Amino acid sequence: MNLLLLFPENMLSENSAEVSGRQLEHIHSTLNVNDGDTLCVGLLNQKIGQATIRSLSKEKVLLDIHWHSESPPALPVTLIIGLPRPKMLKRIIQTATTMGVKKIYFIHSWKVEKSFWHSPWLTDEKILENCILGLEQAKDTIMPEIHLKKRFKPFIEDELPDISADGNKILAHPGEPSPCPINIKEKTTLIIGPEGGFTPYEVEKIRLLNFETVHLGERILRVETAVPVLLSRLFPV
Amino acid sequence: MNLLLLFPENMLSENSAEVSGRQLEHIHSTLNVNDGDTLCVGLLNQKIGQATIRSLSKEKVLLDIHWHSESPPALPVTLIIGLPRPKMLKRIIQTATTMGVKKIYFIHSWKVEKSFWHSPWLTDEKILENCILGLEQAKDTIMPEIHLKKRFKPFIEDELPDISADGNKILAHPGEPSPCPINIKEKTTLIIGPEGGFTPYEVEKIRLLNFETVHLGERILRVETAVPVLLSRLFPV
Repeated sequence: MNLLLLFPENMLSENSAEVSGRQLEHIHSTLNVNDGDTLCVGLLNQKIGQATIRSLSKEKVLLDIHWHSESPPALPVTLIIGLPRPKMLKRIIQTATTMGVKKIYFIHSWKVEKSFWHSPWLTDEKILENCILGLEQAKDTIMPEIHLKKRFKPFIEDELPDISADGNKILAHPGEPSPCPINIKEKTTLIIGPEGGFTPYEVEKIRLLNFETVHLGERILRVETAVPVLLSRLFPV
Repeated sequence: MNLLLLFPENMLSENSAEVSGRQLEHIHSTLNVNDGDTLCVGLLNQKIGQATIRSLSKEKVLLDIHWHSESPPALPVTLIIGLPRPKMLKRIIQTATTMGVKKIYFIHSWKVEKSFWHSPWLTDEKILENCILGLEQAKDTIMPEIHLKKRFKPFIEDELPDISADGNKILAHPGEPSPCPINIKEKTTLIIGPEGGFTPYEVEKIRLLNFETVHLGERILRVETAVPVLLSRLFPV
């Protein structure tokens, strides 16, 4: 944990906060801190600051905060991914959030097992937990939006045209003739298939919306690897 | 599993193989195949081919193989990483192997917990298992070398000069003034610190060997994310 993310309900005044419960356990288990020590904190969707521990007990910690900076810039990307298996899902949410993605759609596709949609990792609470872990790793406070879209065709036909209206449109799909571009920096909608890839029908549906299909080399990457590989290549910071 | 990796002991003749035990369980659990079906196979450190299932039972499978191609090119990189915590270690081995790294050194450093060196994931058997998973994902047959170096100073002083004698020398370290280069392609020795980073003394020891120190942006990445991010940025394929 490189930053402790605070929520409005933690704030006692503009410059002081109280932390208890799960967040306090988190402090005790990952940081070795005492009265008078400082730690990096951020307020949800607001600034980052340095907190001094005024008092620390097993029940609560009181923090005095000096706010000093903004979150690092976000990546200009909307990420759309075939819903991965549950154990990958949480790592993908954490990784994308840490790298600065602010909008993610997990979508259904032919090769997504129906059971994945019933995973306990898809509850609002678990998604929030993994977003927080990703933000705290990156010292970022801006919560990403995560959307779940259980029907492929209505999503592609009715929602994707608006979502991808501006900027680059890229579909990463193994076996395509063009390599993925490098260092494009501009606003981009990036689609990544599920494990096993999209079907030819699905690729065609997406391509009809003027998405450029690109490959990432001969080696087939797991989705959890393809995400940081693509983001690093398109948006090196 | 995109390829089944065969070992010399599996081979009955140049073009036929028998698979049983752990590998067979792997086939039954991840692939839905029957007599006459084909699957992609590779022979350890040799070619890749298409295997036809001559007979399949619970005890063994017999394969007729037509060898047709070579493994994808390796990345021209030697990767040196502060030993990560065990659950990350296996993912890092798999990811680096899938991406085509053929030489990895896991090294000790001040912030590596001593207990990590006693992890069951560091046995030869577990390391081999994770290398196989990485190769099978990438359709590659060339086994990487994995080295474990439990003492920082002797490794840096006595071994690193020879290991890094040719090509670029890059140390990724948060907070450095220069960004990591993009698309260098040439032979490189790449060093990544442990979770929490190298100490100033350790950075200085490495820098004395003419390593360029570079950052990856404001966001602090987990080591398991930094590996694909760095490889993708230095060697886009």
